[in-house]
Amino acid sequence: MAQNIYDNPEFFAGYSQLPRQVKGLDGAPEWPAIRAMLPALTGKRVADLGCGFGWASRWMRTQGAASVLGLDLSENMVARATADTSDPAIDYRIADLETLELPEAAFDLVYSALTFHYVEDFGRLTRMIHNALVPGGDLVFTIEHPIFMAAAHPHWIAAEDGRKTWPVNGYSMEGERRTDWFARGVLKYHRTLGTTLNTLIDSGFTLRRIEEFAPTHEQIEQWPDLAEELERPMMLLVSAQKTEAR
Amino acid sequence: MAQNIYDNPEFFAGYSQLPRQVKGLDGAPEWPAIRAMLPALTGKRVADLGCGFGWASRWMRTQGAASVLGLDLSENMVARATADTSDPAIDYRIADLETLELPEAAFDLVYSALTFHYVEDFGRLTRMIHNALVPGGDLVFTIEHPIFMAAAHPHWIAAEDGRKTWPVNGYSMEGERRTDWFARGVLKYHRTLGTTLNTLIDSGFTLRRIEEFAPTHEQIEQWPDLAEELERPMMLLVSAQKTEAR
Repeated sequence: MAQNIYDNPEFFAGYSQLPRQVKGLDGAPEWPAIRAMLPALTGKRVADLGCGFGWASRWMRTQGAASVLGLDLSENMVARATADTSDPAIDYRIADLETLELPEAAFDLVYSALTFHYVEDFGRLTRMIHNALVPGGDLVFTIEHPIFMAAAHPHWIAAEDGRKTWPVNGYSMEGERRTDWFARGVLKYHRTLGTTLNTLIDSGFTLRRIEEFAPTHEQIEQWPDLAEELERPMMLLVSAQKTEAR
Repeated sequence: MAQNIYDNPEFFAGYSQLPRQVKGLDGAPEWPAIRAMLPALTGKRVADLGCGFGWASRWMRTQGAASVLGLDLSENMVARATADTSDPAIDYRIADLETLELPEAAFDLVYSALTFHYVEDFGRLTRMIHNALVPGGDLVFTIEHPIFMAAAHPHWIAAEDGRKTWPVNGYSMEGERRTDWFARGVLKYHRTLGTTLNTLIDSGFTLRRIEEFAPTHEQIEQWPDLAEELERPMMLLVSAQKTEAR
């Protein structure tokens, strides 16, 4: 089973105060870039893997999605997501992406935000998702960028000229990364960008769009702290389509 | 016109002594990974963009390629490549990739090694290549990895724990990068990985394989200096196929 850091009370207390948890999608600077990658949602059956508090699931219903299955490992998350909606077409459930099985060809869109880097076996997951999508169905997901995740001790440093600089080491050494983020030893799995993309291709997906999130000038004017995101990408956004049988 | 650093005598003298120039393909540690990405070559009409001394062009003929057009900006390179073969099916010529036009549907494979990062207008280049390929034709190329190229002052630094670490800054700020490499102010163009891949997709290519070169254990045993290449990728290898009309 994947590490369930989200039900650690210390972690949950800190995490719940993040702008993106308090304000929802508008608190996530990458949200406009994700929106631009999503297909039209009218009538779509959606699975939201790692739905958290369910902000995206509920938004998809406002855009005409026929149904949304929101899955998360965290009891806390699923309880709060369930309490926050009375929409009968949204179903929030507890699930572990390491072992999850979805029914065949049951979804038009699989969406996931900042969750897959907690999953050890990405190949199993992408094959399962491919099987759960209808032909022509879409997979849109975000993960922490491998540039952000690779180093043994990832944090800003100053270059000789004082410029904010992000250290990269161990990039080709895939596997566990433990970082302190609201709690000690949060476990993530580093994969190279090549591995992430080739795993999708090998699972029968065609790559449609690869974005390394960078803030717009307008976003930086509004939130000056975002300027550092131009120095190194924190998030990778991928859109892929099921075009082939495996 | 692209900067022609290769005909700078100082640069050319140093560059000519690189193991990959002296020994050819076996002097390039990424060559086995490139070979694994190449299609079967028998009967193929190949264009080799940035052919240098022509090592790859000549190798492709040994693998059954019907013809190879090798193009390079450098008179020195083309002169030496031409002197090194008497094969009438290989044609080496001087050309600038910023303005090159190839005939429509005239090639089965376009290959390029460590050249495209010198080209400013990558979109023009990929549309031209797409047009020059037959349907189903392949584009296989290598470039310096954006992680390697991004920083204002790219060079190894030591992390707090002494580990070899590569600094990244300015990743999302695309455009000119000037470095000192056998000569001062060698001009390259940094693009994010997302831009490189999306430009190919927008030009009508389907992505087949994305490799961020890392040495194998066997290679590191043979050349211990290669171990540092595990810390950050220096090269990006891409295989794409012309599957759509634009």
